[in-house]
Amino acid sequence: MKSTDTPEAEVRRTIDDFAASLRGKDLERLFGHYAPDVLSYDLAPPLRHSAAELRRGLAEWFETWEGPIGYEQRDLTVVAGGDLAFAHSLNRMHGRRTGGGTTDVWFRATVCLRRLGGRWRVAHEHTSVPFHMDGSYRAAVELRP
Amino acid sequence: MKSTDTPEAEVRRTIDDFAASLRGKDLERLFGHYAPDVLSYDLAPPLRHSAAELRRGLAEWFETWEGPIGYEQRDLTVVAGGDLAFAHSLNRMHGRRTGGGTTDVWFRATVCLRRLGGRWRVAHEHTSVPFHMDGSYRAAVELRP
Repeated sequence: MKSTDTPEAEVRRTIDDFAASLRGKDLERLFGHYAPDVLSYDLAPPLRHSAAELRRGLAEWFETWEGPIGYEQRDLTVVAGGDLAFAHSLNRMHGRRTGGGTTDVWFRATVCLRRLGGRWRVAHEHTSVPFHMDGSYRAAVELRP
Repeated sequence: MKSTDTPEAEVRRTIDDFAASLRGKDLERLFGHYAPDVLSYDLAPPLRHSAAELRRGLAEWFETWEGPIGYEQRDLTVVAGGDLAFAHSLNRMHGRRTGGGTTDVWFRATVCLRRLGGRWRVAHEHTSVPFHMDGSYRAAVELRP
């Protein structure tokens, strides 16, 4: 990265490459953006995933998409200073699934980053959709920003 | 706060007081821990809540609990440096509801803090439970850590 970049610009570039890696289902490139001890709170159970669980889950999950994954981010906010940063956005994931049918869902994403060895890495990520409080406990996958 | 405290110790104390305020349903004390422009990704829809929406929602939500709210945090990790910090934990919320019945649920919590005017404030929070990927879209409120 150019030394003239601000920490925020560096983090935005990291998040952009993370998104491109996810769209292209490039597991090695994507996983290179995570810290070795990343802890993930994912859309799917269980409550948390270690780095090894995250990697295995991503590999399996990539196989469930036909072609590239549609992935957009809206209202990305990045706060960076020193060797820490956090970012949050509303993300859309959409495309055709190998099992048939399509997915099109908006979810919330929070990523917390550390600068390790001069590179920004995702030390923690949290993705989710809220759930309806009407007694159905149904995930609100129909919400649009 | 004592000047000998590390940033991590300061943040942990902030989170402790946040938790005590929530247990006691003390809206003013709780809300004092948020930055004025906090953006919240909550357990309940919509996808995001502004500071005003968060405050209104908390006031209404406090009314749905009989007595204090049971609130515990497990595996709290805090990373702090300079004027930024982030923390994540698995939280349990339990107690009797005014409408009858009880609640007992574990959820994931991520909080991102900034030091503003010498005080740590929650600039962003994200709470959620994952949802089942079996086609039911049911929030996994039965999970235990």
